[in-house]
Order: sequence, then C-alpha cells, then structure tokens
Amino acid sequence: MKKSKQAPVVSVVMGSDSDFTVMEETVKALDSFGVPFEIFLTSAHRSPERTSSFAGKAAARGIRIIIVGAGAAAHLAGVIAAHTPLPVIGVPIDATALRGLDALLATVQMPGGIPVATMAIGKAGAKNAALLAVRILALEEKSLQKKLSSYHEDMAYDVEKKHKKLTNS
Amino acid sequence: MKKSKQAPVVSVVMGSDSDFTVMEETVKALDSFGVPFEIFLTSAHRSPERTSSFAGKAAARGIRIIIVGAGAAAHLAGVIAAHTPLPVIGVPIDATALRGLDALLATVQMPGGIPVATMAIGKAGAKNAALLAVRILALEEKSLQKKLSSYHEDMAYDVEKKHKKLTNS
Amino acid sequence: MKKSKQAPVVSVVMGSDSDFTVMEETVKALDSFGVPFEIFLTSAHRSPERTSSFAGKAAARGIRIIIVGAGAAAHLAGVIAAHTPLPVIGVPIDATALRGLDALLATVQMPGGIPVATMAIGKAGAKNAALLAVRILALEEKSLQKKLSSYHEDMAYDVEKKHKKLTNS
Amino acid sequence: MKKSKQAPVVSVVMGSDSDFTVMEETVKALDSFGVPFEIFLTSAHRSPERTSSFAGKAAARGIRIIIVGAGAAAHLAGVIAAHTPLPVIGVPIDATALRGLDALLATVQMPGGIPVATMAIGKAGAKNAALLAVRILALEEKSLQKKLSSYHEDMAYDVEKKHKKLTNS
Amino acid sequence: MKKSKQAPVVSVVMGSDSDFTVMEETVKALDSFGVPFEIFLTSAHRSPERTSSFAGKAAARGIRIIIVGAGAAAHLAGVIAAHTPLPVIGVPIDATALRGLDALLATVQMPGGIPVATMAIGKAGAKNAALLAVRILALEEKSLQKKLSSYHEDMAYDVEKKHKKLTNS
Amino acid sequence: MKKSKQAPVVSVVMGSDSDFTVMEETVKALDSFGVPFEIFLTSAHRSPERTSSFAGKAAARGIRIIIVGAGAAAHLAGVIAAHTPLPVIGVPIDATALRGLDALLATVQMPGGIPVATMAIGKAGAKNAALLAVRILALEEKSLQKKLSSYHEDMAYDVEKKHKKLTNS
Amino acid sequence: MKKSKQAPVVSVVMGSDSDFTVMEETVKALDSFGVPFEIFLTSAHRSPERTSSFAGKAAARGIRIIIVGAGAAAHLAGVIAAHTPLPVIGVPIDATALRGLDALLATVQMPGGIPVATMAIGKAGAKNAALLAVRILALEEKSLQKKLSSYHEDMAYDVEKKHKKLTNS
Amino acid sequence: MKKSKQAPVVSVVMGSDSDFTVMEETVKALDSFGVPFEIFLTSAHRSPERTSSFAGKAAARGIRIIIVGAGAAAHLAGVIAAHTPLPVIGVPIDATALRGLDALLATVQMPGGIPVATMAIGKAGAKNAALLAVRILALEEKSLQKKLSSYHEDMAYDVEKKHKKLTNS
Repeated sequence: MKKSKQAPVVSVVMGSDSDFTVMEETVKALDSFGVPFEIFLTSAHRSPERTSSFAGKAAARGIRIIIVGAGAAAHLAGVIAAHTPLPVIGVPIDATALRGLDALLATVQMPGGIPVATMAIGKAGAKNAALLAVRILALEEKSLQKKLSSYHEDMAYDVEKKHKKLTNS
Repeated sequence: MKKSKQAPVVSVVMGSDSDFTVMEETVKALDSFGVPFEIFLTSAHRSPERTSSFAGKAAARGIRIIIVGAGAAAHLAGVIAAHTPLPVIGVPIDATALRGLDALLATVQMPGGIPVATMAIGKAGAKNAALLAVRILALEEKSLQKKLSSYHEDMAYDVEKKHKKLTNS
Repeated sequence: MKKSKQAPVVSVVMGSDSDFTVMEETVKALDSFGVPFEIFLTSAHRSPERTSSFAGKAAARGIRIIIVGAGAAAHLAGVIAAHTPLPVIGVPIDATALRGLDALLATVQMPGGIPVATMAIGKAGAKNAALLAVRILALEEKSLQKKLSSYHEDMAYDVEKKHKKLTNS
Repeated sequence: MKKSKQAPVVSVVMGSDSDFTVMEETVKALDSFGVPFEIFLTSAHRSPERTSSFAGKAAARGIRIIIVGAGAAAHLAGVIAAHTPLPVIGVPIDATALRGLDALLATVQMPGGIPVATMAIGKAGAKNAALLAVRILALEEKSLQKKLSSYHEDMAYDVEKKHKKLTNS
Repeated sequence: MKKSKQAPVVSVVMGSDSDFTVMEETVKALDSFGVPFEIFLTSAHRSPERTSSFAGKAAARGIRIIIVGAGAAAHLAGVIAAHTPLPVIGVPIDATALRGLDALLATVQMPGGIPVATMAIGKAGAKNAALLAVRILALEEKSLQKKLSSYHEDMAYDVEKKHKKLTNS
Repeated sequence: MKKSKQAPVVSVVMGSDSDFTVMEETVKALDSFGVPFEIFLTSAHRSPERTSSFAGKAAARGIRIIIVGAGAAAHLAGVIAAHTPLPVIGVPIDATALRGLDALLATVQMPGGIPVATMAIGKAGAKNAALLAVRILALEEKSLQKKLSSYHEDMAYDVEKKHKKLTNS
Repeated sequence: MKKSKQAPVVSVVMGSDSDFTVMEETVKALDSFGVPFEIFLTSAHRSPERTSSFAGKAAARGIRIIIVGAGAAAHLAGVIAAHTPLPVIGVPIDATALRGLDALLATVQMPGGIPVATMAIGKAGAKNAALLAVRILALEEKSLQKKLSSYHEDMAYDVEKKHKKLTNS
Repeated sequence: MKKSKQAPVVSVVMGSDSDFTVMEETVKALDSFGVPFEIFLTSAHRSPERTSSFAGKAAARGIRIIIVGAGAAAHLAGVIAAHTPLPVIGVPIDATALRGLDALLATVQMPGGIPVATMAIGKAGAKNAALLAVRILALEEKSLQKKLSSYHEDMAYDVEKKHKKLTNS
C-alpha cells in the first residue's frame, strides 16, 4: 500500500480488516487525486475507547474529512460523527446475509443533529466516498478543481470509447 | 411515575423523551414485578460522553441489566453494550418512515463480540424487555420465580377468559 | 421565509413545492447557523434543462454546497451531481406508498464516479443536510466552528434537561 | 453483433458496457423480429450531456422507441424520458448487493408527468422490452402483427413440447 | 364521468370499482389529451372468462392500448397481456397492508414472452399510464405530438411558477 | 419418473420445465404416500388457453387437488384457482433476482373470493404441498391417515436419531 | 355471533381477541355456506398447553379443518399443524409496525414436513380461508359444490353489475 | 466435539443438524469461557412433544439459559420460551431463499408476554448468543466476570494488532 508522505487530510477508517477489500477503492481513488490520507482500523463495539479517542482528536491532528466503512449494524460512522465536528462519510459494507441493507439503514437513518454522508453499499460507495472528499477539499484547492474537471472529462470520454468498442463503430 | 425506593437493579435507557410512550411498557412491567429500576435519558449521538460514562459505571453502581429503547439508526444499545459487561436488552422503536425496520436491523445485527438481546419493535418489545430482565433476575431470586410462575398462569387463564367472552360460553 | 442578504453559499433545491414541508428543516437549520442560502425549485423530469443549467452554473455563482430534496424515483440529486463539481447532499423524501424507501435507494445507490451524500429519509435528513453543510463550511470558517461546538454542547445539555424533566430529578 | 442495414427505429441504450450481458436479450429479440435497431452507450451521471443530447435528437433521427437498461440508482431511463416525447422502456439491472431492487424502484417509481414503461429485473425484462417495442410498432405494421401472432403460437406450442418431454408422453 | 363519442382507442381496465379512485387519474389525463377511451371492469380471478374474452377481442374492436389497474396479487395486467397482442400498461395499486409492493412485483416481474409496461404504484402511475399511451399514439398522430410538446412546456413552466411562489421572487 | 397406473387424483402443474428441479419434491412426496398424480406443464402467460382449459376440466377428470409451482410474477396458481372449484396449492419458486419474494407475494396475496393455499418458497414448499394434499385426501381415506401417522412418528424419531449422531450419545 | 347447532367441522382459531375484527370475515363466509364451525381462542405462547391439547384432540372431536389467524411472530398455525394431521389454514394478521410481513413469513415459511396453507394478510385472507375450507369440504359434499358454483357465478355477475354502475351503461 | 464434564448450565438447542455449522460458534465460545453446556436437537414442528417436554424440564435439570438456533419460519425459540421461565436466546439462521429475514422476524417479533433475546442472523449471532449467556452468568460468577473483562481487553488489543498489520506500522 502506497503511503503519502504529506500529513494526511483524510482518514479512512474501517471496523474490520476484512472491510479493506471494499475500502481499497477509497484508498485508490484518493491516491489517484494525490490526496494525503491515513488508514485507521477501529471498532465501535470491540474498541470503543480507541474509536472515541481517535474521533475526538482527528480535527486537531489536521484531519479534515473522515471516511468510515462498516458492515452489519454499522454504528461506526455515526459514533465517530458524534465525537468530531468534521464531515464524516459512511460506506455501508455488504457483510451479512442481509446484503448490506442492514449496514445501509444503520448508517443513513441518523437522527437529527449528527449527519453521516452516506454512500452506496460496497465498492461503488467506497470509490464515491473518496470523490466526495475530493469535491469538499476542492472547494479550497484550485489544483483539485482541475483534477476533478479532468476526471469528469475522462469519465465522459471513457463512455464514448466503450460505446465505440461495443458497437464496433 | 412511581419510583422504587430500593437501589435500582435495572436501568431503563432511552435516546429521546418521545421514546417514553413506548418504554413506559417496560416501566409498568418492571413495576408490576416489584423490580427496582431507574430511568436514564441519553443519546448515542447527541450526548456520547454521557452515554459511555453511564454505561461504564453502571455495573459498579449495582445495576445488573440495562434495557435500551431507540429508534432510527438505533446505535444506543450497541454503544452501551460496548462499554459494559452487563446484559443489554435492546428495544427497536418505530420512529421513522421505515416503521422500525431500520431500528430493528441497527439493534439486532451486532457483529460478533458484543451482544444485544433484541426484542420486537415497539410496545410488545418494551414489555418483553422487562420480562426478559425478570427471567434473568429470577435465576437468583426465588421470589421472582414465584411471581413469574403466577404471571404465566395468569396469561394462560386470561386466554381462557377471553375465549369465554368471545364465544359467550 | 427569511432570506439572507449575503450572497448564498448553499443552494437548497427541491423537486416539488410539496417537498418544502420537509426541506423547511434544512432552511431553519442553515438560518440558525447564519449560513446564507437560496431556495431553488426544479424537477429532474419536468424541467430537465432548468435543472442542468442551474447545476452547471452553481459553482460560478459562488454556491459551494447543493442540498437536494426529492421523493419517489428521486433522480434530482444524482442529476445535479452529474452537472457540478460541488458537493451534493441528497435528502430522500417519503412521498409514495413505499414510504421513502424508493427515494432512499434512488438517491444513495449512485454508481462509482458521481457521489451524492445521502441523509436519512424525511425531516431528520433535511436537518442533517444543513448540519453537514455547516461541517463542510466550518473547515474554513472559524466562526462556524465555534457555532458548531456550541450546537453540540447544547444538544448534550438538552439531553440532560430532558432527562431531568422525564425523571423529575 | 449483427447490425441492421435499415435505419434503426429502436434505440437500445445502456449505462455501462457490463450491462450488455443483460441487454443482449433485447438485441436478440429485436433481431428475431427483424426490427432495425441501434445500440447506444451513455451514462446519466458520467456523460450527462451526451445523454440529454442523444435523447433530445432521437425522434428527429427517426427513432420511435427507446429501450434503456441500467442498474443501481438507475436514473438513465427517467432522464432520457425527460428529454424526449418518445415511449421509453426501462430495464432494471441487477448490478449491486440489493439485487436490482434499487434499479427497479429507481426506474418504476417515476413521478406523474414523465412515464417509463418498466420491465422485470434482468434478462426476462430485457427480452420483454423488445417484445413491448414490437407490440407498439405492430400497431402500424401488419407484417409485425403476423410475426407477433406466430411468436405467441410458438410459445404456446413450445409449452406443449416441453410438457411432452417432461412427462415422456 | 365524461365519455368520449369517438370510438375508444384506449381501454382503461380495473379489477375492482374501488380502484377507480386511483384510475381516475388515467381517465382525466386521457381526457385532457382528447384521447377517446372506454372503462372496463373485470377481475382476473372473479370473472376470468369475461377477462380473457375482453382481452381477446380488444384489438378487433379498434382498441390500440390497454391500461390495467390492479392491487394485491395483481394478475390482471399479465393475464390480459397473455390474451392480446396490444401493448398493455400496468398500474399497481396500493390496496393491502403491503402498500402496493405486492401489486408492483406481481405486475412488473413478468417472465420473458409477455411484457407489461409497469408504472409507479398509485396515482402517479395512473397518470403516467395515460401519458405513455399518448406517447405511443403520438408516434402516428401529429396532433398528439403537438399536445405532448405543449404539455412538456407547461410542466416546465409550472415548475418556474411554483418556484416564484415559493421564493416570493 | 415413476408414473402411477391409477387414475391421478392430484395434478402437479408448473409454469416451466426448469421448475421441475423444485417440484420434484412434490412428486417424490406424493409417490412415497402412494397418491396417484399427473404432471402438467402450462404457462399462465405463454399458453393461457391451455391453462384455463386444463383448469376448467380438471374436476371432471377426477382430479381432486391441484398443486402449482411458479416463479417471478407467479400468476399460474391464481389463474388456475379462478377456473376450478378444486383446492389449489401454490408453491412460489425462487427464479429471479428477488429470490422468490416476487413469486411469494404474487401467489399469496390473492384478493377475497379465490383462495390459493400458499406454501414456502422452493423445495420445502414443494414437499409441503404434497403433504397438505395428503392431509386433505386423508380426511376420507383411512389408509392415508395411517401413513400420515407413521410419517409423523418417523419425523419425530428421525430427530432423535440425528440428536444422537450429533451428540455421540 | 350466530352459532351453528350442528357439530362443527371447521375450527376458527385465533391468538388474541383483537384478531376477531379480521377473523370475522372467516366466520361470515363459513356461515354463508352453512358450514358448521366453532371459534377457539388460544395462544401459542401464552397458553401453550391449551394449544397443543386443542390441536391434538381436534380430529377426534370431528373437526376436519382448522383455520388459524395470528399476527407478529405468528407461530400459532405452525404449532397447531405440528399437533394434528388435519389440514391447517393460516391467516397472517397485520398487528405490528411491519404491517403483517412478519406474520406472513412466520406462517408461510414452514420447513418441510409440516404444511400450513397460507392465505393473504388480513381480511382478504380471512375470507379466503373459509373459501378454501369450503373447496376442501366440497370434495365430498355435493351440496357445497353447488353453493360454490353459485358463489362463483355470483362473483362474476357482481363484476358485471359494478361495471354497469361505474360506466353508467 | 468437546463435552464438559460438569453439569451443563446452558443448553444449545437447534432445529436441524444442518444448523450445527452455524451453532458451532456458540459451542466454541461457551467452551472458551469454560461454561458447561449440552447440545439438544429438537424441532418445533417435527417433534413437538420432545420440544415441550425438554423445555418444561430444563430448569429443574439445572439448566439456566437456553440458546436456540432455527431457520425459516423459526418458531423453536418462541415455543421453548413458552414452556420455560428461563431466559431464552434466539439465533435466526439463514436457511432459505429469503436469507434469514424470515427467521429473524419469526424469532424477534414475539408478542408481549414471552420474550426471546434475539441475536443477529447466522454465525455472528451464534457467537453473541454465547457471549450474552456469559454476561448473564457472570452476574453471579466472579470468575466469569474476569474472563469477560479479559475477553474485552483482548478484542480491543486485537483491533490494534490488525491495525498495525494493515498499515504496516
């Protein structure tokens, strides 16, 4: 795993090491935009003090956005959001027989007061979590705005390329 | 609300005062068995320190069972269970457009390591939370065993009475 | 409706005027933090050009965050996100027999590439959309950080007050 | 892929090249009825201008029916329907952990004003999209009426054949 | 109920007279476009011969499109589609405790071979059924194309009007 | 496939030959009770006349119970029940991305007037369909009552045997 | 409540007196066919011995069919079916926040070995339970066959009457 | 399978030997805490007398807690809870096409009067059932309190170890 030398501005948190196969999409996307990040493993239930301590200190350490992947009764994003004023992005992970519907509802249905910016279940959501972080950071960083603009152009161009390949035109 | 003079052994926790219309069933049932209880209002998200502090100290204060009612992305029971070795009973509350399905999944789908004894959504679950607490306490208290036995006889007798009323027999 | 005199930095968009009973929560919360906002009514389906034109120009007009409320097959947030590099926050609205589950899935299950920061269904989500916007804006605005800090303290204090009222203690 | 030499009257649109494994059923069925068609790849989110431009010009190019396959938060059919007066047929694709329920609701729950003729999730729906297009085109084309009539007879006959094979009668 | 003097080209079918409160939206919308229609009450289960006889003869009577509203295990649209080569549009009706999810799945999940163009649950779907019929009929009728074009312009204009009213601008 | 020489009293109907992998459980169970049966393949949608003709004549042919397996928008059991006064038992089959939930709701949610005795989704339901048929036939046949009694004893005995094997006791 | 003087052949069982508002439909329909029935109130959970004793003796008392209405985790029909060789018909009742989906799944998803003939949730299902019982009893009773035949004719005729009323024709 | 020599205090019950692949997690966890247990196989439906007899005598045999795993229309935990005053813990098992949602609802939605402490679907729930039993037993057993405390420390430590491994730090 590549690790950025700059001080991280995004923290990518997950509740279990098995979640990394999904959250790797977040890491890859942040990396491709050159956003410095860190990875942090903690559980809302198995290591609650570690979790609240991490969340409570993140802002002071210079972290600006926290991305959290969790499955099952996914409390991790909500618990972290309760301990920090930073924007928290939640990625529900398909980790049980209910195929991520449990994680989705446990992440998105936050009561009024503590928001979690919820993404789609699984890899698409993990990737989009990074892209939302980039959109937020780009509000202040011109260089990211340019990269985002290129990214959007590339996506549109990629659709055209795939169209040509599919239709042999 | 009647308040027992004895030191409470059950703590009835809820995330919002509006949950009391449901959790009142717990209170009534504990009261009818003479189990001393306390009521505690705290939110996993709006008052996280209050929640972890409460949960961390409950056992030392003599509390033996914690009953937790919460709606929406109901993290409260799980978060409390993470901070205490006591048995935690969760009551999902129907508080959103999804009719308590969100609260049920967020309460019951706990990952391995931290159990929450989940009850039915709403008033039936709130009542049963008290009855489960009584079953647990009755393991050591003969007097509760007798009351539980009478309670079961009364339920069966009540079915017969209602049968007679319904069929005019 | 109060309207801020400052140039708006948040745009509160909705697909139907009937959605305002929900999105009013967003407006109230932004107002209480003193965040200048505008309200914009447009439909992904009934006024598609108006929608794409609005979204395409929002950043240049100085808008920094777009909050979108929509019900049913809620495409509005996703369509707007496709036309802007700004962070887009989606609020699913309970507007059909399926009680907002349709709007939730249509908002949150975005494919990789275009993120929508999805909130809870209905009023809780509408309020949290504003609070997420505040968290994002507070990354650069010290004054908002202070207000957010007070807001969190007030929430925790409010829990204590309600506890006292509920328990007559 | 066979390509008809006649000017296409049906456009088969999909949001991703991976959707072709499903939408191939549409293509095969149109082909078997001799309906001239084209294939078009575009994304509601990754290439929004390409999508609206395509939809806005389809009628003038002689396209009479647009069939759209899409998965996840499937906005593509609705967005295309918003930009064309032509009948639009939507095929929800099972592309996420939610097994196409997200795509189904995002396609079918269109608000009043812009209809999308929604088919079943997956291959059965893709095939039926072609058959619905044939039913519509057959309103004016006698030759298609005959083919449709034969097709229905063949289906009924096929059931009898399979019955005989299954029962060895 | 207004009844068109011209020979009907659309048949609006429903399984129960109580469905008319929903299907009235279809009737109103057809009426506003001047499309001649008829209303037909029949049940897939309670009057099966009436249903198959109706469906089998509809095309010969000059009917071009059949719109079917039904609730619960909504078989009516599928059964009619099995007996006619005409395009059949299904409107799932919220008539049971499951809020129309049963009717939606029973209408949309048709196996390959017999398509039903499924609309949203309830009134939005009933209105859109008429609009889809208009889109199909407009393929051959210039006058309907114009009306459809005006209808779309009116919808977009209506959004602007509502925007002004909502924002007092 | 064994075929009984006696005139069949149960008809095992299915909508597709691929359903036989499930409906084989019905056949096996009927066979083990010595109940004479027939197998009939027909589709509510692809061969509607064959279906109604079969259903309309079943009673006169001496059939006493009809068991119907079908997947997707499973209309077959309901349609058959509409054409016969015989008891109809429906087996929902898991044949789509929705894992049989569509077939279950389309089979069980019959409107008042035409009952379908619905079984569990898949093989357990297919087996139970035969057992329900046996329970019904046993009302008049002493020999079946005895077999049913033995069957229940065997099931209970089998549980004990498996217990011993599992616990090595 | 009318009570038949003849020895009952159908037993209408329910788990709670509040279920009678639904199960009254069963009673009315049995009554209209002149089928002698009894009503029995018992709970799988609150009066388990009463339940198993009732079920174990029903056949010997001359009962031929048992109809069971129950809500929530509806175990009553399954438990009764486990104690009798008679056909058992289950009616899921909408008694919780989950609108009868819990009762439906708890009634219909019986494992192989013990069938419950499951009806629709609520009043439609309660009515159909009686009609299924009539279909079963009619296998041996000519008089019921005639009544059933008239009932079907009346239903079809009633559709025509309602059609005329709705269309003023 | 190791078998404890001490008299069992927990009974691990399951409805089918195939459930053991899930319930093995309960056994392992009880074993690791040194809690003496027994395994008992019985079915609510196939061996109802065995089930009620077992449940009725468990308390007198010295059993203190009953853990029950069951799938499909999972009645076993509820039926056992109806015959014993002991705390009953239910583990829903994913054994059908509905992926354990049926078993979850059939276990958790118990009506007021008879509680079942419901765990997550599958292996996580099976493990947590043991841990809840340990929490209950630890109320009286100091030695278990210590083990539980170590277990929680180990879980938290394990999170740190996995963090280090994942981040190579």
